[in-house]
Amino acid sequence: MSTSRAPLRVALLGCGVVGTQVARLIHEQSGDLAARIGAPVELVGIAVRSLHAERDPLVDPALLTTDARALIDRADIVIELMGGIEPARELILRAVTHGSAVVTANKALLAEDGPALYTAAAAAGVDLYYEAAVAGAVPVVRALRESLAGDRVRRVLGIVNGTTNYVLDRMAAEGLDLDRAVKEAQTLGYAEADPSADVDGYDAAAKAAILAALAFHTRVPLAAVGREGIGALTSDDVAWAGRTGHVLKLLAVAERARDESTGIEGVLVGVHPALVPEQHPLARVGGSFNAVFVESEAAGELMFLGRGAGGTPTASAVLGDLVSVARHRVRGGHGPSESSYAGLPVLPADAARAQFQVRMDVADRPGVLAQVAAVFAEHGVSIEAVRQAPARETAHLVVTSHVTSQRAVRATVDALARLTVVHRVVSVLRVEGA
Amino acid sequence: MSTSRAPLRVALLGCGVVGTQVARLIHEQSGDLAARIGAPVELVGIAVRSLHAERDPLVDPALLTTDARALIDRADIVIELMGGIEPARELILRAVTHGSAVVTANKALLAEDGPALYTAAAAAGVDLYYEAAVAGAVPVVRALRESLAGDRVRRVLGIVNGTTNYVLDRMAAEGLDLDRAVKEAQTLGYAEADPSADVDGYDAAAKAAILAALAFHTRVPLAAVGREGIGALTSDDVAWAGRTGHVLKLLAVAERARDESTGIEGVLVGVHPALVPEQHPLARVGGSFNAVFVESEAAGELMFLGRGAGGTPTASAVLGDLVSVARHRVRGGHGPSESSYAGLPVLPADAARAQFQVRMDVADRPGVLAQVAAVFAEHGVSIEAVRQAPARETAHLVVTSHVTSQRAVRATVDALARLTVVHRVVSVLRVEGA
Repeated sequence: MSTSRAPLRVALLGCGVVGTQVARLIHEQSGDLAARIGAPVELVGIAVRSLHAERDPLVDPALLTTDARALIDRADIVIELMGGIEPARELILRAVTHGSAVVTANKALLAEDGPALYTAAAAAGVDLYYEAAVAGAVPVVRALRESLAGDRVRRVLGIVNGTTNYVLDRMAAEGLDLDRAVKEAQTLGYAEADPSADVDGYDAAAKAAILAALAFHTRVPLAAVGREGIGALTSDDVAWAGRTGHVLKLLAVAERARDESTGIEGVLVGVHPALVPEQHPLARVGGSFNAVFVESEAAGELMFLGRGAGGTPTASAVLGDLVSVARHRVRGGHGPSESSYAGLPVLPADAARAQFQVRMDVADRPGVLAQVAAVFAEHGVSIEAVRQAPARETAHLVVTSHVTSQRAVRATVDALARLTVVHRVVSVLRVEGA
Repeated sequence: MSTSRAPLRVALLGCGVVGTQVARLIHEQSGDLAARIGAPVELVGIAVRSLHAERDPLVDPALLTTDARALIDRADIVIELMGGIEPARELILRAVTHGSAVVTANKALLAEDGPALYTAAAAAGVDLYYEAAVAGAVPVVRALRESLAGDRVRRVLGIVNGTTNYVLDRMAAEGLDLDRAVKEAQTLGYAEADPSADVDGYDAAAKAAILAALAFHTRVPLAAVGREGIGALTSDDVAWAGRTGHVLKLLAVAERARDESTGIEGVLVGVHPALVPEQHPLARVGGSFNAVFVESEAAGELMFLGRGAGGTPTASAVLGDLVSVARHRVRGGHGPSESSYAGLPVLPADAARAQFQVRMDVADRPGVLAQVAAVFAEHGVSIEAVRQAPARETAHLVVTSHVTSQRAVRATVDALARLTVVHRVVSVLRVEGA
């Protein structure tokens, strides 16, 4: 393979934790990169907001510039690691229009405005790659875009937020309550000072939108993604999950479905805490790992596991994309463009069908179960399992339904709350992967 | 995306379980495939050995031909699913020389003669894709070839043979002996009538050679792959694995290493039964699933899990490759070529360093442990854990070493066998993933 070609000029936008590692890897792996690409790559500049911020000594100060536009205009490949919507969007569009390939890790921007960017890249005939935007080093974007391109995906279940996965893990292992587990995650640097982007599911929802669009070749507006975080979960919820043979996980779920009330076929996309059976591969994904479980018609069940965050894992995903787009520059052509040819509608969240587990405090006397069971039956919700644990004055009743609609469960829960023997409906959780 | 282009002509060589499913998927998914590729694909023929064999009714008899060469000459893309070395090699070379892209699932051929085929494809400027040759639907070839192209792989541990994984699973779950578990696998269609390709590790060794070549950009002759199957494992080995917190798995291992006796840096490639700690993700890969665990410098730990065999999962991998090579036809260019630019030597198997677990029957009297420990010390093998279980006349002693060289362990075991207090060294197994 010849490497006598002129170097490919790479511009880096942003120089935070990931950017620093990308710069380091481009430098350290230059020989391997040249062999794999067929031409050397040269980092021609790093756009930053201020030249005076403190930086890692790995970063060559001579490469820094505050003029991102001028930098883009002299690059073949632009790596965007600034995050946020603007100026990232404007700069990516500038790069694409200029004919440069783009690699980005910007999940917020892709969830917000991915289709416009994909269309611009396809129109310009350039690559827009974004493996690092979903689940860090886990190569799920490539798997959906390429490996499963001849298959039909039915469902994607992802643990795509390492912070909440760590928090739930600690709650399960140590019986911690949520606040304490979040504080521990903050101390270890796994959670931000303001943890709401993780805890309330915003981060996972952005990734769910990107995954769903990829898996189902359909536009998925972020606003259409159902979102329920882990903020309301108690150590009791986590303990009861264990007692019933489940592990509580925050899941991003995207699936083909049919809305029974309208007959419309489409996709359901949402983020919510879910009970995952202990024997399911996702149940064992611990700590700050990410994993994406895919069910497809021909391949069957697949799972991808790895580090979802952190400077070097994310940088590895960025470099993998860099090699792909650089190879296309050298050999001609470009990678697959995103396409929303399937045009499936995004269904309302309450069209979901699943198993549900309803926990409630009830009066501790004979006949209560019969009354509760009657309410389930009236709403057409059939029961798979019931478990009763006596407490002081009350009993604790855990009812697991067969697969049913979320609407039917909501109506059931409303009716249960009106029964005098039901003191309180404590929680309603979906079971996924059963 | 325009689909008004002329169809891409696809030739299928072989019409067994996988070929039948590939033909079905090309037919059933034709609309999706055209949208994803940018042009329709047309199956122009299926080469078979005899026109009179019994076939699935899915297969259109009008497509069948016994003239593989003529079929190849009128195709843009050739999918080789015949298996075996010849005539598959000759036909793939013919296709490549003719300028056709090739997709193959032929692990035996790639392990035997991959480099010659890769070189021919690169010289002709055509794609040669083979995702289905390793671990079926698990997209590990693409991950190593593309996702990790900007990273440096340290080690690959794979459960790449579903038959032996099923057999070991059943031995662990039910205490079955090997023969019985193999018979059960045969009854269920997971094992062949002659199970030696699986049981003796030949199938896994071919996949190990392909994985190692990909991961380390180096030629790995099949003859250089260390190979130890599961044929000698007893239900006792499996039970003791469990007692010491491990699961026994047949692993394909490929890693960067340094031969301490020569100072040579290279790669170690082998297949052997190994004790995997219960908490390691590979330990939970059950039944007929395949999984590949990758340790790389930047990405850290990654795992890919899925169906390693079966008509439809393998066909899914073939179709994913078909879409990739077809896209390249439509948009110009081609995918990454294999390259052995790194040129690392393959080290002798006994250069391996790992933890080892040695089980032995010893005399049940004081001082035995001291004598045994002295032998380990004399050979420079330090001990991590010892466990003793009294039996009738003898005691059972399980010694787990720290990381040490296989040579030192061999010498230790030879010396142990000469001790009069050691009645028998029962087994010596590597611990992987600790």
